[in-house]
Amino acid sequence: MKNSIGTSVILTLAGESHGQAIIAILDGMAPGIPVDEEYIASQLSLRRPSGPWDTARREPDRFSIVSGVYKGVTTGAPLTIAVPNEDARSADYAVLEDLPRPSHADYAARVKFGGFEDHRGSGHFSGRVTAGIVAAGAIALTALKRKGIRVGTHILECAGVRDEPFCLNPAAQIDKVSAMEFPVIADVRKDMIDAIAAARESGDSVGGIVQTAVDGLPAGVGEPRFGSLDGVLAGAVMSIGGIKGIEFGTGFGLAGMRGSQANDAFCLDGREIFTETNHNGGINGGISNGMPILFRCAVKPTPSIAIPQESVNAEGTREETLTLTGRHDPAVVHRARVVVDSVTALVLCDAL
Amino acid sequence: MKNSIGTSVILTLAGESHGQAIIAILDGMAPGIPVDEEYIASQLSLRRPSGPWDTARREPDRFSIVSGVYKGVTTGAPLTIAVPNEDARSADYAVLEDLPRPSHADYAARVKFGGFEDHRGSGHFSGRVTAGIVAAGAIALTALKRKGIRVGTHILECAGVRDEPFCLNPAAQIDKVSAMEFPVIADVRKDMIDAIAAARESGDSVGGIVQTAVDGLPAGVGEPRFGSLDGVLAGAVMSIGGIKGIEFGTGFGLAGMRGSQANDAFCLDGREIFTETNHNGGINGGISNGMPILFRCAVKPTPSIAIPQESVNAEGTREETLTLTGRHDPAVVHRARVVVDSVTALVLCDAL
Amino acid sequence: MKNSIGTSVILTLAGESHGQAIIAILDGMAPGIPVDEEYIASQLSLRRPSGPWDTARREPDRFSIVSGVYKGVTTGAPLTIAVPNEDARSADYAVLEDLPRPSHADYAARVKFGGFEDHRGSGHFSGRVTAGIVAAGAIALTALKRKGIRVGTHILECAGVRDEPFCLNPAAQIDKVSAMEFPVIADVRKDMIDAIAAARESGDSVGGIVQTAVDGLPAGVGEPRFGSLDGVLAGAVMSIGGIKGIEFGTGFGLAGMRGSQANDAFCLDGREIFTETNHNGGINGGISNGMPILFRCAVKPTPSIAIPQESVNAEGTREETLTLTGRHDPAVVHRARVVVDSVTALVLCDAL
Amino acid sequence: MKNSIGTSVILTLAGESHGQAIIAILDGMAPGIPVDEEYIASQLSLRRPSGPWDTARREPDRFSIVSGVYKGVTTGAPLTIAVPNEDARSADYAVLEDLPRPSHADYAARVKFGGFEDHRGSGHFSGRVTAGIVAAGAIALTALKRKGIRVGTHILECAGVRDEPFCLNPAAQIDKVSAMEFPVIADVRKDMIDAIAAARESGDSVGGIVQTAVDGLPAGVGEPRFGSLDGVLAGAVMSIGGIKGIEFGTGFGLAGMRGSQANDAFCLDGREIFTETNHNGGINGGISNGMPILFRCAVKPTPSIAIPQESVNAEGTREETLTLTGRHDPAVVHRARVVVDSVTALVLCDAL
Repeated sequence: MKNSIGTSVILTLAGESHGQAIIAILDGMAPGIPVDEEYIASQLSLRRPSGPWDTARREPDRFSIVSGVYKGVTTGAPLTIAVPNEDARSADYAVLEDLPRPSHADYAARVKFGGFEDHRGSGHFSGRVTAGIVAAGAIALTALKRKGIRVGTHILECAGVRDEPFCLNPAAQIDKVSAMEFPVIADVRKDMIDAIAAARESGDSVGGIVQTAVDGLPAGVGEPRFGSLDGVLAGAVMSIGGIKGIEFGTGFGLAGMRGSQANDAFCLDGREIFTETNHNGGINGGISNGMPILFRCAVKPTPSIAIPQESVNAEGTREETLTLTGRHDPAVVHRARVVVDSVTALVLCDAL
Repeated sequence: MKNSIGTSVILTLAGESHGQAIIAILDGMAPGIPVDEEYIASQLSLRRPSGPWDTARREPDRFSIVSGVYKGVTTGAPLTIAVPNEDARSADYAVLEDLPRPSHADYAARVKFGGFEDHRGSGHFSGRVTAGIVAAGAIALTALKRKGIRVGTHILECAGVRDEPFCLNPAAQIDKVSAMEFPVIADVRKDMIDAIAAARESGDSVGGIVQTAVDGLPAGVGEPRFGSLDGVLAGAVMSIGGIKGIEFGTGFGLAGMRGSQANDAFCLDGREIFTETNHNGGINGGISNGMPILFRCAVKPTPSIAIPQESVNAEGTREETLTLTGRHDPAVVHRARVVVDSVTALVLCDAL
Repeated sequence: MKNSIGTSVILTLAGESHGQAIIAILDGMAPGIPVDEEYIASQLSLRRPSGPWDTARREPDRFSIVSGVYKGVTTGAPLTIAVPNEDARSADYAVLEDLPRPSHADYAARVKFGGFEDHRGSGHFSGRVTAGIVAAGAIALTALKRKGIRVGTHILECAGVRDEPFCLNPAAQIDKVSAMEFPVIADVRKDMIDAIAAARESGDSVGGIVQTAVDGLPAGVGEPRFGSLDGVLAGAVMSIGGIKGIEFGTGFGLAGMRGSQANDAFCLDGREIFTETNHNGGINGGISNGMPILFRCAVKPTPSIAIPQESVNAEGTREETLTLTGRHDPAVVHRARVVVDSVTALVLCDAL
Repeated sequence: MKNSIGTSVILTLAGESHGQAIIAILDGMAPGIPVDEEYIASQLSLRRPSGPWDTARREPDRFSIVSGVYKGVTTGAPLTIAVPNEDARSADYAVLEDLPRPSHADYAARVKFGGFEDHRGSGHFSGRVTAGIVAAGAIALTALKRKGIRVGTHILECAGVRDEPFCLNPAAQIDKVSAMEFPVIADVRKDMIDAIAAARESGDSVGGIVQTAVDGLPAGVGEPRFGSLDGVLAGAVMSIGGIKGIEFGTGFGLAGMRGSQANDAFCLDGREIFTETNHNGGINGGISNGMPILFRCAVKPTPSIAIPQESVNAEGTREETLTLTGRHDPAVVHRARVVVDSVTALVLCDAL
């Protein structure tokens, strides 16, 4: 399924950057979960460009719950949220009909959809569609919280500035970063923002790494083989635009370790079984082992930059320099984190 | 679906390490594809422990095509391959019924399946189940070859020794490494094997990184959002036991780059559109762009080591030292590569 | 999947009778299919109560295409249609919060959703949700027409009055009934309407049988086993509220025949293979054989009637007489036909 | 998915009539369910031709549990059952490579699979593949029994002889017919068998109707819309070869009734809510209402008959008379019932 994810709890996405609205249908949520519109709004605001360093497009993200909620709680019927588009300027994108942007979906989409695709503002490929993920994710996060499960993401690295990683018991750190607009654990906010601003001034953009932690997930969640918790999380998270890598626990760092260093020994604390280290990121054989789930995602630099770039026209007859004039982000790492939190929460609701 | 993958071309896996056989059902393959039993056997031999550094368990992997093939070609009906287990020694694993191995699925599986699981040799969680993936993957690789699509994987890093990466046009390199039992591009075979042997002598194990290339895939394959080619590949590959990270193209390296460095500019070569660099690993917006698909996977050190380790007994009442006596691999990186090739081929057949 | 149907072409439904809107997302349609809003509107009008015999609720069914269409054609991205609810009178349904209507979903829904469901006007179980099926089905019907495939349904029986069945080559009859608001082949319109009106006068309702024909479907469509064309059609059509039976070709009539009577002998007409009879309704072994697809569906009498009925209160403590005061249909057979056409078209688009 | 059914409890089928074996993989069953090989064998024997009136092919149906069972109970891993083919005589079918049998899948399969299909004994389309359904169904029936849910089917009509239908509380009747090789409620066994024998003597075949009852299913099972219990059951049951119609409760009989007759009024018996009649067959709005599930299926006469029939050769160049010489059943109604029971049990396990 192209635009749907999940088996029991299923999210279906629709909408384009410059169309009427982004639509998310969330099917299979248990009935009786409180739906707090203020919380959805605050989650959407984390995704929205808002700082001085962000794109000048300003979407209020006034959303509307179209179905599936009655008397303030989920009914068990499919829940629809619509997020209308209000500040789209299609003229900015007219040039792209002819010249695909490097490292964007423009060219691949044109080959796939034969030129029928809505190319304005990247159309259905736009990051704007993630507003639907965030709105639905807010309900999934609420459902998890009621079970004592926390999900949080911080910027581990951006524009060459590095934050400290989550500690072994990240519950308090999760709460802290989830409340921050620019989520970092150590005192690196100013350095990162300055580094982003510097890139912006030169018409360029930066990438980064986000790290996610899940606390409170019991052991035994996930399936062997193709329903593995890490496999499903990886598949879902890699579907977010701009994410080019994911690693669990120590991840690529494990490649250089020996088994005796990498293995997480079991210990006993009263009646609780835990591991002394968490190199596996809380997952063994695709199934949660009761330790916090930990993973990191690589976010590539935003491909839309002001610096002129080489491209090839739609007919494939000549090379041409592309100069973008629209409103673009020098970084999306800080905005990507709420999308990662949301996708993670949706996957966990489905797996539970 | 737990043990199935794919929408049009679907693989379903069953079997345990010490059960009767591993079973793979491949449904949805086009009719008329030649099924070459020698090729399947040779692919299975790449997965099988065979060198002096490998586990002493010797499975001949005599397989049997149970259905779906008639007069040497696929019929379009579901194709079943059975790989019987012939050299299982369950007694080696008796201790594990009580003491879970660190960084193995034992503990997580016991919580999930309530103690009813077949724990012998990791049961359904055993790497042995990947024999089904490799057998089915051989047919998928054949189907791709007929369309001019090559898939190949080499050991980029193992036990601290590093191979050189695939070049921009990897077709010849793919052919070269696919024919090697220990697949490396540069002259690093002896160094890697020596490093593995050294770990083995100290009762330890090593991890590594494999790099995969797909050549000949046309632009336009994959879907937006949750059907993205990188998302689906990541989900499938991360389901292979021991793989803890995946990155496409330059992957985590993109986190420290600027957009002007990371973007792959479009160029024209006659009527062919290509990109000068391939930092995106051949995928934009979840859809192939006609460049080679490139990704790297982190393989953790094999968790079964001879060195004694701390564990906790099944009742969760006391900590205890676990000393493994079975036959174990000091490295699986060289064997993982054919599993990665196979999963990749199955995903591509499904996406095409 | 609860509210989705299809594997390649997927419809997802959301919305309640008295909520904001009915939402249909159609994913996987090929790009470039013309979307004619007038045709969608005319199809919706066939589903809408409009005659003197219909419920007094009058919904204009002003719909809105929210995504997936650009310059008048499908883009290949998910297509969303919203049909707002404008004439809902929730007060009529207040009594039902306590007393479930016999043969309605009220009681079963309460058990399933624990009282959190939106019970107003049957909520998500309302026939109103089929507006989403019809809107999406209009696009599927258009896509089929471009391939020379026609789908049509007529009222074979209603309130004891019987129409004549489709003939062996139903193309012209399909066109005829598809253009009729009250679709019958023979001259039985007045008799049926009079019989419906008679039931209405006594506060009662009637059922009926609709017959569907598909012309122009090539041989070879469908799958063996659980993807069989008749199985998938049966599953989809039986999901429409009020439909309690489906039979293909001669259906239950085959139970009393001998093989020599029931078998459809193959004949040759020039180079065309066809069958002399069509007792199998165009499907053998789950796969189309090139003859017209033919099936009949039983529609039960509308359960909402003005005549007082026995029920039991929500707490399950006392029996009580229920007297309905809302606006109700004495028959839905004539409205069900466009829903059956739409579901059939969606299934065929997915199977092709 | 073509050869798989279910979302949580998934059956995948493979195998051909004259191949090595029929394979069924049952994934998602809860761990800890006892697997009684004698019960599986007895269920397989009900499907097997055995009477004097049956085909002369004699398959012992020695099956083998290949995976998923350990110490006599399910492990939670995918459970594989293999039923080898031992008495296939392919020569009998040589003629069919050229001449398709009327009302069989031969012609449709040839168009679909381009002549690559294994046509021997109908290949993957053979009724023999249902041995996999029955073997897996035995485990599903066991799981249901442990929850107090009974499933049973009898021959309501065959060769013009009619049995009496299930009564309102069918538990005892279900137990009775489930223990009978030729399952009928009234004293009609001899009449039916005589009527079948008469057809056989004239080289012909007969059809019939089977009726199924499920007792003990709680209210609230099933989903709205496309996951409706009746929709899913209809889709699954219609996938069984030879079944051409299904109706729930009073089914097509409802078409001629008024709402006041057809509605099932709610009553109270102590604290138990039930309905006085069961015209809806235990399902309202796609969800079980606590009454017994009741449905009837039309089984067409076996298409393989000894009487010569008209057909057209594979090249489509000439009409030709087909005279079958293999071993064929004059009726399959009595054997179909265990397949219907099995499919029903699998669907219910998935829905619960």
